[in-house]
Amino acid sequence: MAVVSGREASDPRLGGHLREASVRDRVDQAAKRAGGNLKWGIDPPGVLPAWIAEHDLGPPPVVRDALRRLADLPDVGYSRRAGDLAGAFADWCEVRHHWRPDPALVVPTADVLQGIWAVVAAFSEPGEGVITTPPVYPYFHDVAPSLGRRSLECPLRHDADGWRLELDDLAALLECEPAARILLLCSPHNPTGHLYSREDLQAMVELTRRHDVILISDEIHFDLVYPGGGHYPTLALPGAAEHTVALYSAGKAFAISGLRAAVAVFGNEELRARFELAMPAHLLGGVGRAGVEAAITAWQHGAGWLDELVALFDRHRRMVVDVLASELPTIGCHLPASTFLAWLDVSAFGLGPDPAARIRAMAGVRTSEGHEFGTGGEGYVRLNFGTSTALLTEILDRLVGSLRLRSDAMPAG
Amino acid sequence: MAVVSGREASDPRLGGHLREASVRDRVDQAAKRAGGNLKWGIDPPGVLPAWIAEHDLGPPPVVRDALRRLADLPDVGYSRRAGDLAGAFADWCEVRHHWRPDPALVVPTADVLQGIWAVVAAFSEPGEGVITTPPVYPYFHDVAPSLGRRSLECPLRHDADGWRLELDDLAALLECEPAARILLLCSPHNPTGHLYSREDLQAMVELTRRHDVILISDEIHFDLVYPGGGHYPTLALPGAAEHTVALYSAGKAFAISGLRAAVAVFGNEELRARFELAMPAHLLGGVGRAGVEAAITAWQHGAGWLDELVALFDRHRRMVVDVLASELPTIGCHLPASTFLAWLDVSAFGLGPDPAARIRAMAGVRTSEGHEFGTGGEGYVRLNFGTSTALLTEILDRLVGSLRLRSDAMPAG
Repeated sequence: MAVVSGREASDPRLGGHLREASVRDRVDQAAKRAGGNLKWGIDPPGVLPAWIAEHDLGPPPVVRDALRRLADLPDVGYSRRAGDLAGAFADWCEVRHHWRPDPALVVPTADVLQGIWAVVAAFSEPGEGVITTPPVYPYFHDVAPSLGRRSLECPLRHDADGWRLELDDLAALLECEPAARILLLCSPHNPTGHLYSREDLQAMVELTRRHDVILISDEIHFDLVYPGGGHYPTLALPGAAEHTVALYSAGKAFAISGLRAAVAVFGNEELRARFELAMPAHLLGGVGRAGVEAAITAWQHGAGWLDELVALFDRHRRMVVDVLASELPTIGCHLPASTFLAWLDVSAFGLGPDPAARIRAMAGVRTSEGHEFGTGGEGYVRLNFGTSTALLTEILDRLVGSLRLRSDAMPAG
Repeated sequence: MAVVSGREASDPRLGGHLREASVRDRVDQAAKRAGGNLKWGIDPPGVLPAWIAEHDLGPPPVVRDALRRLADLPDVGYSRRAGDLAGAFADWCEVRHHWRPDPALVVPTADVLQGIWAVVAAFSEPGEGVITTPPVYPYFHDVAPSLGRRSLECPLRHDADGWRLELDDLAALLECEPAARILLLCSPHNPTGHLYSREDLQAMVELTRRHDVILISDEIHFDLVYPGGGHYPTLALPGAAEHTVALYSAGKAFAISGLRAAVAVFGNEELRARFELAMPAHLLGGVGRAGVEAAITAWQHGAGWLDELVALFDRHRRMVVDVLASELPTIGCHLPASTFLAWLDVSAFGLGPDPAARIRAMAGVRTSEGHEFGTGGEGYVRLNFGTSTALLTEILDRLVGSLRLRSDAMPAG
């Protein structure tokens, strides 16, 4: 349901006149390295970056135009423009996700991580538990310790069909940990690209409500969903409103994370008021005008560009899975239903405790270390396929070349 | 000492090749109103804004160029550019203020208010006291209540020479309030434009240290100091380091507050470490790239432009005081030594409890209500003279015209 047709993309609520805005399937490596980008900035030119969860093809031309207009404004002083973020986000969700949040419940944050930290700080006490579902985005593991809360884990299960949350595991954890106060969900799921089914999400909503647990749903990858799959906004589910906060940003889809603008969406006024009382707005700081203009522009005028991007990355995800299946069949990899990330089981290659470091040394490709994603991540690396087709081809060639050699050299059995 | 010569302004540490960058003494009112600016955005065109502490003449051309370069970068994704903020700030301080902070002790914040809130939250407990020195920037009064701390006041004294902090008052307050934990200083002082003397600051440093009080020094107006005066960075004073945090931004001088970037400077590693433990970086959120580029550019290439601006506003402050002294001698006003703000005693005009509202209605000029600045602010309004000479002339004409009429109509005695 998340991928819309061209007709929907030009819905008048999303700005009416979309500019021509084709995705350029091309990356200028030298410019990336010179421009200060972090993903491209830490390795010598011989190493191709496929780590940090940022794609290489943004921002869309309409966002560049918005930044140029910012430079030509009479000033970049105090404005009320951040107040328009909520409406633009609500319009976007209504057209793209068939769910319209109440703009009055949408609070700007610097980024989704700030939203997570602030909601955990606001809705739990020191010593209470924060449940994560590893393997999961590494920063999730830092939330509880940095705020004096307790880390609890409900690891995902894995079988031939892929990754999933076993609801009985969650129910058992909630039963035996009465101090659990937060369930921190990553939906769509990073690193596996798993899309939680509507039924699973509904069950999580009910379990957490029954145990008086706040459900934080990080939905930052919500716009990167491939045909055949569907993303369900947690807050759209019956019974979710009274104990759910969902977090969004235009950063992942449009590659504008460096400008900093995200939103926290509260289920109802009471949650929002409790949050604002516990977390004064000035403590969180304001959202900068560039991030605001970029996000509003992306949501109002970026639909056509994003459809092209998703179509391109759909081809990329199949390329990753097909090439690895044919050339390195001992790598385990499910076709990701969302995100531009592939979660690769490289345990068959005997690469030691830090396989990403070994792959970087052998293949000249930087992936993310699986063990940084927590329980279940050992023996895995995360590969970012959000780049040009040419670069992805080169990345896969390098992986295949060096791992096949290694595979050949491994003792049989 | 804060106002530098042209030679210093082209110090190679500040970027070497300064572009030609003259201040344009001109405001396009219609563009301001259409561009989303808050100061210009809440009144109909008949009303001239002289309220919010933002001047109308920024940003400098070099900052506009930096924003254009941002639009042309390969991407606006994750970068490490915020790491360059500390060095640019340290260089700026060294040349302009003859004090070089250790870049390792400089932490980016969204804005100075976030710095204040976060430092108070980090270094005090609920129920402990936060001392302010009213009349002072209205948001200072919100810090303690919003964080569950107690508001304590050490009001400034006022006499024919102007405003000052009476050190005996501070000493007495600290003696009788052992739960005081923070002194929140505004230096240079908003709204009076008062520059604390080196001796007063040194005495405050010693008093707070003796009483185990953290000194927060909001020095956001540090670059707007007129000939004859000097701003003394609190952290440059002997004995300050172990209990002082100073807060700065390029926002006031260069009118780039909407982009959000500021810095908190800790006196030593221990303070910084305590802060970072109490306030996880992700809770505070990151600083957006546009704010970072604008601040770095202003600090590296904005010195010449700022010198012109200060010279212009020096003429403006004299214009305000001279016009009022000759045309409305019953208005009390000291020549501000810093800021683009004039603090006007309008109590002689019988304007009621909200004199700014009356002045707006009578003169079509929006000033800030004095009572919002707390104790000592009743009967005052704050006038922002940080605009074009033409507009300031019009603003003063309107004030004089409507208040002189009123003055004529007032009963004698």
